Amino acid sequence: MLKAVKEIELLLSSDAVSLDADVIEAHSHSDWSTSNSTGRPVAIVYPRTTEEVSKIAQICTKHDTPMVPFGAGSSVEGNFSSPYSGICVDFIYMDKVVSFHPEDMDVVVQPGVNWMDLNKQIAQDGLFLPLDPSPTATVGGMVSTNCSGTNAFRYGTMKDWVVNLTVVLADGRIIKTRQRPRKSSAGYNLTSLFVGAEGTLGLVTEITLKLAVIPQDTSVAVVSFPTIKDASAAATRLIRSGIQLAALELMDDVQMGVLNKHGSAAVRKRVWDERPTLFIKFSGPTQSIKGDILAVESIIKAFNAGEFYFAKTKQDEADLWSARKEALWTMTSIKPKSQSLWSTDVAVPISRLAEIINLSKEDAGKLGIFSSIIGHVGDGNFHEAIFYDPKNESQTQAVMDCVHKMMDRAIEMEGTVSGEHAIGLGKKSCLVEELGPATMNLMKDLKSAVDPKWIMNPGKVFDLPKGARAVAAATAA
Amino acid sequence: MLKAVKEIELLLSSDAVSLDADVIEAHSHSDWSTSNSTGRPVAIVYPRTTEEVSKIAQICTKHDTPMVPFGAGSSVEGNFSSPYSGICVDFIYMDKVVSFHPEDMDVVVQPGVNWMDLNKQIAQDGLFLPLDPSPTATVGGMVSTNCSGTNAFRYGTMKDWVVNLTVVLADGRIIKTRQRPRKSSAGYNLTSLFVGAEGTLGLVTEITLKLAVIPQDTSVAVVSFPTIKDASAAATRLIRSGIQLAALELMDDVQMGVLNKHGSAAVRKRVWDERPTLFIKFSGPTQSIKGDILAVESIIKAFNAGEFYFAKTKQDEADLWSARKEALWTMTSIKPKSQSLWSTDVAVPISRLAEIINLSKEDAGKLGIFSSIIGHVGDGNFHEAIFYDPKNESQTQAVMDCVHKMMDRAIEMEGTVSGEHAIGLGKKSCLVEELGPATMNLMKDLKSAVDPKWIMNPGKVFDLPKGARAVAAATAA
Repeated sequence: MLKAVKEIELLLSSDAVSLDADVIEAHSHSDWSTSNSTGRPVAIVYPRTTEEVSKIAQICTKHDTPMVPFGAGSSVEGNFSSPYSGICVDFIYMDKVVSFHPEDMDVVVQPGVNWMDLNKQIAQDGLFLPLDPSPTATVGGMVSTNCSGTNAFRYGTMKDWVVNLTVVLADGRIIKTRQRPRKSSAGYNLTSLFVGAEGTLGLVTEITLKLAVIPQDTSVAVVSFPTIKDASAAATRLIRSGIQLAALELMDDVQMGVLNKHGSAAVRKRVWDERPTLFIKFSGPTQSIKGDILAVESIIKAFNAGEFYFAKTKQDEADLWSARKEALWTMTSIKPKSQSLWSTDVAVPISRLAEIINLSKEDAGKLGIFSSIIGHVGDGNFHEAIFYDPKNESQTQAVMDCVHKMMDRAIEMEGTVSGEHAIGLGKKSCLVEELGPATMNLMKDLKSAVDPKWIMNPGKVFDLPKGARAVAAATAA
Repeated sequence: MLKAVKEIELLLSSDAVSLDADVIEAHSHSDWSTSNSTGRPVAIVYPRTTEEVSKIAQICTKHDTPMVPFGAGSSVEGNFSSPYSGICVDFIYMDKVVSFHPEDMDVVVQPGVNWMDLNKQIAQDGLFLPLDPSPTATVGGMVSTNCSGTNAFRYGTMKDWVVNLTVVLADGRIIKTRQRPRKSSAGYNLTSLFVGAEGTLGLVTEITLKLAVIPQDTSVAVVSFPTIKDASAAATRLIRSGIQLAALELMDDVQMGVLNKHGSAAVRKRVWDERPTLFIKFSGPTQSIKGDILAVESIIKAFNAGEFYFAKTKQDEADLWSARKEALWTMTSIKPKSQSLWSTDVAVPISRLAEIINLSKEDAGKLGIFSSIIGHVGDGNFHEAIFYDPKNESQTQAVMDCVHKMMDRAIEMEGTVSGEHAIGLGKKSCLVEELGPATMNLMKDLKSAVDPKWIMNPGKVFDLPKGARAVAAATAA
């Protein structure tokens, strides 16, 4: 592996390679993640072009050295950790907008572009990328985890917004999955194969994104319910109504209490009902929103809903929505230093949502420690967050059991063990339970065909086969 | 191959296998298609369950016998023809709705289900599958070609509506790509790999489809323009406006003339302007549609638009839309018997649409024979149809040259050679030009990993490698 590092240094210039222990540590561990490996990369490399990435891959292939791509480091399933060591490829300097085509409603970007920066740059043309994961996320990471966020209810997930990808394969070959039409049925859908593959099939070096037109107007309403069951049932009815909402989010009583006690100044301007609460975003022409609001109010009444609170100004609207969006940040900031945060998600068919949220809350409640639920209920997807003491073995085991019970239940309900965080290190065994050995074997066959040495982000999505080059290299190192 | 047929007969019962010459012919040739091969399957087999398909695959693998899936036979690129002979697997008896989950807004079907029949069955629950290819199409074929139609502008293409697939691989293994969540980021997106793969990676035997809520109301408007350039420019401006139209279609002067002369009785109730015409479909709450119509009228005025004609009744609306939908049928019915129809499509970035339609019309006009253009302009996708005499070699060559020029132009404009018909036999060489050898090689690597003998629908999407078993078997037969 160190031979590979030296060759890369010669090729790229020495300041494109870091062996600094602090830098390596910062690329190996995350407080947000439940799945941190003890492995560390031998070096961090900083390419600036697709061609440089290709050369790095050629060298790594020559020396059987794992390559682990790194975006913003905000993923939560250990997606960027280095259990088999190797070289971490940080895309921070590949952060350019390559070309913007407002008339075609698309933009070509490098993987290190942050989605919020991108949206600021293109807003003057009335366009935006309608995904909203962590504010820190970069497009490369968003592609690799098939991310989504609160906007997914209306706009779908990352896979729906990628027109084409330029990818460097393990051996350095550069491929482009498609040209730039918004629609195509020409050949295999390689784009969708790489979206969500977590860098295990190749390193994404350029992305063409579809863009959506910024809606003329938006509005936000907040409404609370006596029980999770009422809130979920109301949400299910809204989904079935066909009213085109921009987002439909749920926060439980615990989360609402967190807002009252620890929300930002803007969020604490009002006292929130500490009950299960739906956050509803409307978007479209102003006139249509008025109709949508009336329709939503009339549907929700039947579910013991409290008073609707509507944002009165655009600032008020931003504040209300940030109460939802800052939930994970707030929790990270209030977590006692000695404790860890377990943050996970599942997604189920919509009709099972109320049931699984109820059961999961009940189980987590029995732990006797902090736990809360936030849901992208419009997609049948929700997150559970638990604080626990990692030094307390029996508590840690109890939390693990509780989370696995939730995973098993999601699988029983024909759901998935990961709605929007991908698999990483943390959910490999759950994925096998979800899909079964035949489907997993097909995925592994594809992996072997594209990356025969298994050196692309090894140990993610599935375990390595015995005798894989990456294992041998890590053992030798 | 005949050994394989005999084993299948023993296994399935003799009436599940046909060796009848007329039946074989009907499964080998299409008047709608430009790409008919001279090869014929040795038999047609009719499975009724996934398990039967699996057994067929095991037998075919044992005897190196190609398998060609057959849905409704309405594809246009030779997708179901049998250039290497083999066994044609007709899914006509696998036409059941397996389970319908209105509360989850999804339905599980067998591949032989017709999409219009399905929509009739589920309409009472206010749901529909929002794709609208040929009225004859079955879900299996729709999956395999990644079809779309006029609704794609609002609802996307087939890949956006498939939740999971059950697939029989070449060796008989049965895999299911996912469970039934509406959203997932768990493992590779195998679903999208099989959608659009034209049966070259496996035989799809069960499909879970997302469903959409039937809009409260719809409306249709028709408006003509002096030139294609005006019509395309108006369409482009509408797309950029963000007004959420249900469909945005273009028919050229020639097509409008066909409506006047040969349309159905309902369509001929009015005299159409024989000029380039946009067909615009609105959908949503009645009140929102009113707003959308005003907005569309004000945008389009600037492009020398004629008078808007709005459907006055629901019947009128159906008639107006059928004028658009029946275009291909009308052409097939007026085509002189001695002539053939060349029907093809491309898609380009939206800003290039006016230019490529203009140039393509100009080129086709020089042929001095019937040619027309219909466009799903909302997606940058359009169809060209040409009547020609297949016995007239120089004319046939001129038509081929003209079509290839259109393909080359679409590629130059960063477009695709197939917007919604897939590749089949007909567009293999164009696909290589579109994507280049590195990307094609990756597709072939995936094909080899999943179907090492190359016996799944061989000769489609790309040519077979030398020495492939399917070639050997066909040569021996």
